[in-house]
Amino acid sequence: MTPDPGAGANAAPARPGKNFHPIGSFEPEMGGYLPEVRLAYETWGELDDAGENAVLVVHALTGDSHCSGGPSDAYRRGGWWDEMVGPGRVVDTDENFVVCSNVLGGCSGSTGPASVDPETGRPHGMRFPVVTIRDIVRAQRRLLDGLGVRKLRAVIGGSIGGQQALEWAVEFPDFLEKAVPIASTGALGPQGIAMSEIGRRAIMADPNWRGGDYYGEAGPETGLAIARMAGMVTYQSAPGMWERFGRGPARRPPLYEEFGGMFDVEGYLHYQGQDLAGRFDANSYLYLTRAMDLYDAGAGYASREEAYRRIEADVLFVGVSSDWLFPAAEVRETAEEARRAGASVRYEEIESQNGHDAFLKDWDDLRAAVGPFLND
Amino acid sequence: MTPDPGAGANAAPARPGKNFHPIGSFEPEMGGYLPEVRLAYETWGELDDAGENAVLVVHALTGDSHCSGGPSDAYRRGGWWDEMVGPGRVVDTDENFVVCSNVLGGCSGSTGPASVDPETGRPHGMRFPVVTIRDIVRAQRRLLDGLGVRKLRAVIGGSIGGQQALEWAVEFPDFLEKAVPIASTGALGPQGIAMSEIGRRAIMADPNWRGGDYYGEAGPETGLAIARMAGMVTYQSAPGMWERFGRGPARRPPLYEEFGGMFDVEGYLHYQGQDLAGRFDANSYLYLTRAMDLYDAGAGYASREEAYRRIEADVLFVGVSSDWLFPAAEVRETAEEARRAGASVRYEEIESQNGHDAFLKDWDDLRAAVGPFLND
Repeated sequence: MTPDPGAGANAAPARPGKNFHPIGSFEPEMGGYLPEVRLAYETWGELDDAGENAVLVVHALTGDSHCSGGPSDAYRRGGWWDEMVGPGRVVDTDENFVVCSNVLGGCSGSTGPASVDPETGRPHGMRFPVVTIRDIVRAQRRLLDGLGVRKLRAVIGGSIGGQQALEWAVEFPDFLEKAVPIASTGALGPQGIAMSEIGRRAIMADPNWRGGDYYGEAGPETGLAIARMAGMVTYQSAPGMWERFGRGPARRPPLYEEFGGMFDVEGYLHYQGQDLAGRFDANSYLYLTRAMDLYDAGAGYASREEAYRRIEADVLFVGVSSDWLFPAAEVRETAEEARRAGASVRYEEIESQNGHDAFLKDWDDLRAAVGPFLND
Repeated sequence: MTPDPGAGANAAPARPGKNFHPIGSFEPEMGGYLPEVRLAYETWGELDDAGENAVLVVHALTGDSHCSGGPSDAYRRGGWWDEMVGPGRVVDTDENFVVCSNVLGGCSGSTGPASVDPETGRPHGMRFPVVTIRDIVRAQRRLLDGLGVRKLRAVIGGSIGGQQALEWAVEFPDFLEKAVPIASTGALGPQGIAMSEIGRRAIMADPNWRGGDYYGEAGPETGLAIARMAGMVTYQSAPGMWERFGRGPARRPPLYEEFGGMFDVEGYLHYQGQDLAGRFDANSYLYLTRAMDLYDAGAGYASREEAYRRIEADVLFVGVSSDWLFPAAEVRETAEEARRAGASVRYEEIESQNGHDAFLKDWDDLRAAVGPFLND
């Protein structure tokens, strides 16, 4: 991993492709100080004169600002929500000014642990302050202000993106009309935190992690790959894994020497681990999973109910029947809590064996759940 | 970890305390050869003249031969199934000759990867052959033969012990009257295999693992601790973890430096990981989890149905409603498969939020489920 080359770059015009917007200095809510922060972002469509036709799409843990469009010099992969975002699609880029930005603390162009600290000339590493979902949302707000957005028609995202969508509705109640948290709740449960922590410990146990100061050298790719393996288990469901992998033998050439043969599910996890290790910064993984664990919609308020009482937007919560990380029952309970607090709330549930990952797979169900709410 | 000091010791008289029984050379079914194998075991009660009043208790992944009794020089901890095994208890040591042995491949006195290979004078390490549940059961059979046991009244165990109980009924149909596989099925599912593999990769990624040749030096304790953390998640249920830990802060002094505070569930997992790393051999962990993954009751037969058709014992399957590793629905399905194949089968389900671990916690329910079957 090399130091983030674009840190401190000036904002480029907002066009398809990766743009950068400096949002100045930033004080995360749990302490610390970042003298210069920028967010990487991409936009689609045109902002209207009033600045009130914007939709913010927020990405999941290892995602980036490229929710729509093909691979390019700026993005090695096609848009991660192509089926949802584009002309005439559910998030309609003909009608809306769509914005998607890499999160604060991320590693796809926004300021994060891999970015050079202007005060030391070295990457932040673990000196990067803890950032929360609220910090991430506050940074997004500054970007939107900078782009001339006066009001959001909607914020939509899944998983850690869903936490952001909910937090938007709590933190900036008069700035958005609708929020769509998908496969996400007001606070992650202990089993999810446990799985995050297994991954973090694997990263930190990797001798190449070096307390986070591995930039310019070999990084903790093995630890990050193990963390990703743990993550992938939480993104799928037991019945879905039976259906997809069963107890079949590996179908790919093995990445690791094994004893007693290798199961298909193992080969799959090894490849997913290796893939992430080649494209993601391990320290960002630590910080962003921590933000996910720490998120509690009621933090800073007397209760979650008090937080939800602030909500002015219409909120659509979407649960996935087989979700392991954010179980549908907990998504529904979050929706009910918000409703009891007076928020205008809907709840839709996607019946799927794809688990948490359904928001990146079950396109028809997702469009059916989200489309009417977004576009009525 | 030092080399196993007792390897090659002669059998001691069978008494409470840790005894050792040499079972000669052993050829594991997947290949390899062990020139000298011994099993560590403990017995309670008296064998009758016919040798037909024995009950075999089989331990779980990190257990040992001490299912009953207090701590002693031979065992640092009290019996892991004290509530079930003893005079007048469900497994009644007044009526039965109760035997419990450490599994082949284990690290609590039986031959395993930490044992010295008599042909090289060095610990086997990863040169130890892959052992399967069938191998473990075949080794137990030799121990019982050596002790003069002619027939078992029952074999009972949970988790990997449940796999052994089922395999006993398939492999040696005329040697036992009853089998009680608890929280166990005819074949582990891909989600369980995935969690095992995350743990194995964490061990193998630890630089102290050294390809398995760490004996006499610092071992892969960090990797083993991470593996244990992953295991512990599979032993509990999501609702049980909400109840026990919720999102509360750590109640123990932290073992690791953390950022953003530490959750109770994290502190718990850290301590569980450290505890196991101090008492268990990492290579045994690799081999025994592999045996658990590989177990398929139908292996070597045309189908699982054909395997189950061999069963002559009465079999009681016990599922736990919130079990994540061996879901109750899969335990029930295994019972139904065996019944369809003609076996005499009962199924009991324990309603509990303790997940897989219920067979080490929910004593009243366990006794109620197992007692009538064992003692009628």
